Amino acid sequence: MFEQSVYAGRRRALVASLTRLGVGDGLVAFVGNGESPRNYADNAYRFRQDSSFLYYFGIAEPGLAATLDVGSGVARLYIDEATIDDLVWSGPRPDAEAYRALCGADSAVPRARFAADAAAAGDGLLFTPPYRADASIELGAVRRVAPGAVAAAASIPLIRAIVAQREIKEAREIVEIETAVDTSIRMHRAVIAAARPGATESEMMAEAYRVAYAGGCPAFPAIATTKGAVLHNHGYPGRLADGGLFLLDAGAESAEGYAGDLTSTFPISGRYDARQRAVYEIVLRAGEAGSSMMRPGTSFRECHFAAARAIASGLKDLGIMKGDVAEAVAAGAHACFFPHGLGHQMGLDVHDMENLGEVWVGYDGEPKSAEFGLKSLRMAKPLKCGMVMTVEPGVYFIEGLIAAWKAEGKHSAFIDYAEAERWISVGGVRNEEDWLVTDEGARRLGGPFEKSAAAMESYKARARP
Amino acid sequence: MFEQSVYAGRRRALVASLTRLGVGDGLVAFVGNGESPRNYADNAYRFRQDSSFLYYFGIAEPGLAATLDVGSGVARLYIDEATIDDLVWSGPRPDAEAYRALCGADSAVPRARFAADAAAAGDGLLFTPPYRADASIELGAVRRVAPGAVAAAASIPLIRAIVAQREIKEAREIVEIETAVDTSIRMHRAVIAAARPGATESEMMAEAYRVAYAGGCPAFPAIATTKGAVLHNHGYPGRLADGGLFLLDAGAESAEGYAGDLTSTFPISGRYDARQRAVYEIVLRAGEAGSSMMRPGTSFRECHFAAARAIASGLKDLGIMKGDVAEAVAAGAHACFFPHGLGHQMGLDVHDMENLGEVWVGYDGEPKSAEFGLKSLRMAKPLKCGMVMTVEPGVYFIEGLIAAWKAEGKHSAFIDYAEAERWISVGGVRNEEDWLVTDEGARRLGGPFEKSAAAMESYKARARP
Repeated sequence: MFEQSVYAGRRRALVASLTRLGVGDGLVAFVGNGESPRNYADNAYRFRQDSSFLYYFGIAEPGLAATLDVGSGVARLYIDEATIDDLVWSGPRPDAEAYRALCGADSAVPRARFAADAAAAGDGLLFTPPYRADASIELGAVRRVAPGAVAAAASIPLIRAIVAQREIKEAREIVEIETAVDTSIRMHRAVIAAARPGATESEMMAEAYRVAYAGGCPAFPAIATTKGAVLHNHGYPGRLADGGLFLLDAGAESAEGYAGDLTSTFPISGRYDARQRAVYEIVLRAGEAGSSMMRPGTSFRECHFAAARAIASGLKDLGIMKGDVAEAVAAGAHACFFPHGLGHQMGLDVHDMENLGEVWVGYDGEPKSAEFGLKSLRMAKPLKCGMVMTVEPGVYFIEGLIAAWKAEGKHSAFIDYAEAERWISVGGVRNEEDWLVTDEGARRLGGPFEKSAAAMESYKARARP
Repeated sequence: MFEQSVYAGRRRALVASLTRLGVGDGLVAFVGNGESPRNYADNAYRFRQDSSFLYYFGIAEPGLAATLDVGSGVARLYIDEATIDDLVWSGPRPDAEAYRALCGADSAVPRARFAADAAAAGDGLLFTPPYRADASIELGAVRRVAPGAVAAAASIPLIRAIVAQREIKEAREIVEIETAVDTSIRMHRAVIAAARPGATESEMMAEAYRVAYAGGCPAFPAIATTKGAVLHNHGYPGRLADGGLFLLDAGAESAEGYAGDLTSTFPISGRYDARQRAVYEIVLRAGEAGSSMMRPGTSFRECHFAAARAIASGLKDLGIMKGDVAEAVAAGAHACFFPHGLGHQMGLDVHDMENLGEVWVGYDGEPKSAEFGLKSLRMAKPLKCGMVMTVEPGVYFIEGLIAAWKAEGKHSAFIDYAEAERWISVGGVRNEEDWLVTDEGARRLGGPFEKSAAAMESYKARARP
């Protein structure tokens, strides 16, 4: 935890922000996460606190709640004292008063009192949309609506105020994020070193997780795959083969809960072949095109399109795309090979504040495009100093997608499908970095991790016994 | 997955068992597990299927459901076809008909039809108590009760039939469990080799998980601690110190979902000191006392008390306990040092079928003691050939518990508190093995893993560079 004044200050700023948005009273409810059962209640997954609870109250213990009275600014923590069984099974822990002091709340009362306090606020109860079913049940009981109807009753001003606050990272948060990114770099270096023909995808994931757990934990399920063209591949059944590419999309979470998120695509046998290298370098250029445009006031949509044009231009040079590059991108033809967005905000969540809704986190309330490709752009709004963004262009040869578009004749003015099919064996290439928007532009977060094809080859060469 | 006839056969046996229990019709509902959100909906924990769903239908995919008509024996799988977005993001997967064939169900229909089919069964809908809130919401909507009231409406005959079937392991299940135990042994050997003064508990946990993930995943959150006297220590903040003990309670889950569960307690610097060795050897003798009694017809409660008497006897030799050993154990005095049960069933769950309720899994419907210590005995009923049990005695010097009992003068005829306090620095020792009940008695599962003090010291000695 940070010192208590950090949390008290954040809560004061939230109250001020709500007041500016016209909410002068009401009770903000923070329902902390509970244990998350795996195959039975007591075999729980590793506990993860809700990120907004963590941001405003800092305590990473399961089963808590908190309230913040907008009119008075009074903060209350709902927490039970440990029992003798807790002592025997889980060891000594601070008492409720100690926890209250750690987060600077005004009082600490038994957890069971939350329901009555929340119900007493009536329609003045403000909360964010729950993403866990137990929170939906608890808030539904308080508001007397079905669990499925709770999210629709969430407070838009509260969502807007939290997004506006959390998306501008404090200096202490940047320190945490860089710690997480540095651990993430070590995850990648360890996997690049361990990769060899005959190894399994599971072993590569396990090696990445080993590094993450030693310093915190993984921030999200790693993608560790020989099939980089499957964008969110969360199975690890494959075996590494000579001549293939390996794609690792993995990041660590720091002890305070901040994320890192990096992707590397490297040659299993140590050398990119000519086609792999050509695609890899297009992806690097796309990342440069996107990140070099980042500065306060520029919309991330513009950065995305700059990267998309770099990809279309590179693919045109290879004969895979054709026609006018700007027209091709405007029409969405590049999405056959780059079907996702350039990146997303990152902080306490790897997709920061995704539970609060892309409409606010990424679009300032504007509707998002429903077009294939563009609908996967998580962030489009103008950048501000202090935002942290991932920049993660990719080029993929997705057999099923190419076949489907070819059959429809889709964008046939811009895509040479016969040529595209000849590149399917390259699979998929993505390169992902984490960037901080600064006054002048943007800087990459974390220590040195050069991504040129030569550097990637040298990491592997140096790792050889 | 096993072949489809395995699942069809298990479902036929379940129907026959329900019929014998007087349930001749009705519709058994299996709600498979969904994705489990971590800090937002799409950042989910590693998927784990519900174990009974896995046992009767075998498909480890999120968001499925199934029904089994008791009268006709007809099985239906509720599953949606993949979309083009699924293809792009998650890769190609089998279609619904292929999944139906894999588990041998009679039909496969869209997931949305489950609600109507389940509701049509009315009070004839049979289900097990949900342990995930989303299943409580879904079944609550079908049965028109609040989510919190669903568990109370679960079917006791269904619970009894499933317990009776799952607790007798098939030969193919023993093969899976031994695979998991062998991976678990490798986890322990790797941590024993890696342990050194100055290393962190997190690094030890990370090393154990690395081995588990390469062959499946961890079966439960590892206990990897320098404070063995905290029974379920799930934090890893400590650092290994010269002269101390390290306790690792960790196990792997096989690819088919079966668990291993082992505990080792070893000296960080390679040699047990005299006190550590004395306690360690009491724990080994307690394990032998318990496991040597295991055979069909003997209650596991008797095995537990045999281990408890071995512990009390050993502690009496050390001057920590006193008086008549049998009387001390009958009075519960040993529970100050051995506050948990001897073990639990193990299979698809590390605490097998815990979600179905200890009253059936461990007690054949009899009430469990509420006495400290005995209330933590998860299994008391007679053993049967084919059951798999953990045997995990421990001796702990829990400072807060010793202080509390001393202040009360509790069992002062059997405990020398002044002497007990002199052993607090030993901390806690546990040794855990996994055993199969056979016709003649019981056999330890997994490959060689000798646990004598000399063997444990030699594992470390051989691991030195």
